[in-house]
Amino acid sequence: MEPDNLNEEQDQNSWAVNAWTLLSKLRDQSPLIQCITNFVSMDLMANTLLSAGASPAMIHSIEEIQDFTPHVHALCINVGTLSPAWLPAMREAAQVANKAGKPWVLDPVAAGASSFRLKACLELVGLKPSVIRGNGSEIIALSKASIGATKGVDSSHESMDAVEAAKSLAQSSGAIVAVSGAVDIITDGHRVVGAHNGVSMMQKITATGCAVTALIAAFVAVDPLHALEATASALSIFGIAGEMGMAMAKGPASLRMHLIDSVYNLDQAAVSSRLKVTSL
Amino acid sequence: MEPDNLNEEQDQNSWAVNAWTLLSKLRDQSPLIQCITNFVSMDLMANTLLSAGASPAMIHSIEEIQDFTPHVHALCINVGTLSPAWLPAMREAAQVANKAGKPWVLDPVAAGASSFRLKACLELVGLKPSVIRGNGSEIIALSKASIGATKGVDSSHESMDAVEAAKSLAQSSGAIVAVSGAVDIITDGHRVVGAHNGVSMMQKITATGCAVTALIAAFVAVDPLHALEATASALSIFGIAGEMGMAMAKGPASLRMHLIDSVYNLDQAAVSSRLKVTSL
Amino acid sequence: MEPDNLNEEQDQNSWAVNAWTLLSKLRDQSPLIQCITNFVSMDLMANTLLSAGASPAMIHSIEEIQDFTPHVHALCINVGTLSPAWLPAMREAAQVANKAGKPWVLDPVAAGASSFRLKACLELVGLKPSVIRGNGSEIIALSKASIGATKGVDSSHESMDAVEAAKSLAQSSGAIVAVSGAVDIITDGHRVVGAHNGVSMMQKITATGCAVTALIAAFVAVDPLHALEATASALSIFGIAGEMGMAMAKGPASLRMHLIDSVYNLDQAAVSSRLKVTSL
Repeated sequence: MEPDNLNEEQDQNSWAVNAWTLLSKLRDQSPLIQCITNFVSMDLMANTLLSAGASPAMIHSIEEIQDFTPHVHALCINVGTLSPAWLPAMREAAQVANKAGKPWVLDPVAAGASSFRLKACLELVGLKPSVIRGNGSEIIALSKASIGATKGVDSSHESMDAVEAAKSLAQSSGAIVAVSGAVDIITDGHRVVGAHNGVSMMQKITATGCAVTALIAAFVAVDPLHALEATASALSIFGIAGEMGMAMAKGPASLRMHLIDSVYNLDQAAVSSRLKVTSL
Repeated sequence: MEPDNLNEEQDQNSWAVNAWTLLSKLRDQSPLIQCITNFVSMDLMANTLLSAGASPAMIHSIEEIQDFTPHVHALCINVGTLSPAWLPAMREAAQVANKAGKPWVLDPVAAGASSFRLKACLELVGLKPSVIRGNGSEIIALSKASIGATKGVDSSHESMDAVEAAKSLAQSSGAIVAVSGAVDIITDGHRVVGAHNGVSMMQKITATGCAVTALIAAFVAVDPLHALEATASALSIFGIAGEMGMAMAKGPASLRMHLIDSVYNLDQAAVSSRLKVTSL
Repeated sequence: MEPDNLNEEQDQNSWAVNAWTLLSKLRDQSPLIQCITNFVSMDLMANTLLSAGASPAMIHSIEEIQDFTPHVHALCINVGTLSPAWLPAMREAAQVANKAGKPWVLDPVAAGASSFRLKACLELVGLKPSVIRGNGSEIIALSKASIGATKGVDSSHESMDAVEAAKSLAQSSGAIVAVSGAVDIITDGHRVVGAHNGVSMMQKITATGCAVTALIAAFVAVDPLHALEATASALSIFGIAGEMGMAMAKGPASLRMHLIDSVYNLDQAAVSSRLKVTSL
């Protein structure tokens, strides 16, 4: 075996060991994850968090942020069905999380769909999320601060096209940036890794992107000092569960069910044999 | 074979060919469908659209309508969990869609449940939807402009009873009117056709009515000049998927899963052999 | 057989007969249940009610209460995703239900998560619900009128710990109080019974607590004069469906599906052989 291959294999092993360790911690610690999220995704997001071992709380009123947010282990903000009424609570929750030293994760759904939405997302980016996860179109919209690149909530850009945008956004924001796609890209602005697990049919299930962002929040909650690794691990775990679910699925709705069951049942052997993260 | 039977069989064939052609177009073109809809239905509606090949966008803020709605291929407005805060955006989206020449579809959920709701629905009817789909009680409430005919969101009128109300509403509004029931009725005010596919257990799944209205929007998006045919096709396709799902289901929740999987997997053979649309 | 065992067996039989009678009535009468509830639970709650034979209506606007609420058979109020905008409608609906002599049921989700939420819940308790159902932490928070006992929406107290709090709350409020847990507790402040059916994995499905509260509303709708028995019956029926679903499930998402299918399919034999309610 060539030295390079050997290194690569060792790398795979260490990524797999780390992802499994984080999932085990998550199951042990059951971190409390506050989600201020869109109406479409609440059910799948809560069930994804529960199946992974976390404790979700969909609490979005500004009246509750000061009392509640300091006690959570991570915060997930998702702008999917954004309205002006919800934005102040998003802002305040991000600020309270920052002040309390809790990580928070942003999902800039359809960031380029309107000026209102783009402005809101850019403002949230300015509030220092630990991680930003979107599809290619969303990350490009944020990076260029321009609308129109997006086709509703579905991406019209492959994730590889968005690598430069992601690096640029990571550098300017200080966040880990993840771009979902055929290969998921994760970058801190310098280092870039690719997470290769998952199946394309997951895009035919609404809110899988939102759900994996919440899972990232849960992983970052148990390892806040290594947000890039935690993010890549969450994306890999969700992708592996998707692959295992796909083996039992007959279409998008049965895949959704088997995906969540697989997150719940995931064991070390599956993580070890399936996880694929590479340096890009 | 009698000439009448022969004609009827040719009719069935041409309906089946047309429905399959529209579904194929939908899968190819993946039209962007904006849904301003109720909280209960968002998940099933988005998953129905995705499984059929469309691209759903649940965007409801009035701040986004001017930027976003001109780019959609059709709009679906559903008043299920109506509140005064959402109504201005519904109005504006309908007007922007009209101005941009995009079809829009109205689902007047529980139209007769309150004066507030009836008034809102009648106002939306006045904004020239391409299609209105409801159950018998809802269509009767709209046609008579009176409350009290409705039992919550479930119909207390068989769809056949509502034929006259549907014709009258179609004539006064200019919309295609569809009435869901044991046989779905579709009319432009003069011509009346019946779509016979579907199974009664679909009524035991929340939001199947909302979901098929969104599917109508997607079908009308790919054939806006033939809204009656597109509407009958969408109702037939959803009904056929329900029949196929029912063969695998053990109850309402497994039917829901198999229904969506079946929309995704539907092939020409199933459409040809199962579709039943008749002139009434 | 000892006399005590004999009595206990007769007791089991009469509980089972009663639960089956109420479920049969529910299927026959299809009571209309208005739910003013949180965004996360709407889908599962509506599907639970439909599968049990009830007719759900998620109508929350204050503009509709006066017209609509007098016609419902029971009302379910759940504060899961509470915001100040929804509270006035909750208040008014409770008052209209009281005035019309219709039972209403309160689910004080995460009552101790914030001062805002606790105050709202206490105010609703003051509006004389027929039944209050929560987990241990929520009932303790209400009983002590203090925040901080709660961990988000998941309980950090076993239900047995909450018996005294439940009795005290029942006495002060006049409501039947139910505490979900490994054994569900139901009390009118004097008598205490335990409902033993269910499986722990139901806690890994979001909104199962909310769904069973709605089911309680449906059972109380068909037997408003025996709210304690109706509440214990609803909890038992849901628990039995969970046990039957668990036999087919591979994880939380398939359990959710089989649970709802089992509510739909439940027959007298399953209720008779499985139901377990004891005096505590």
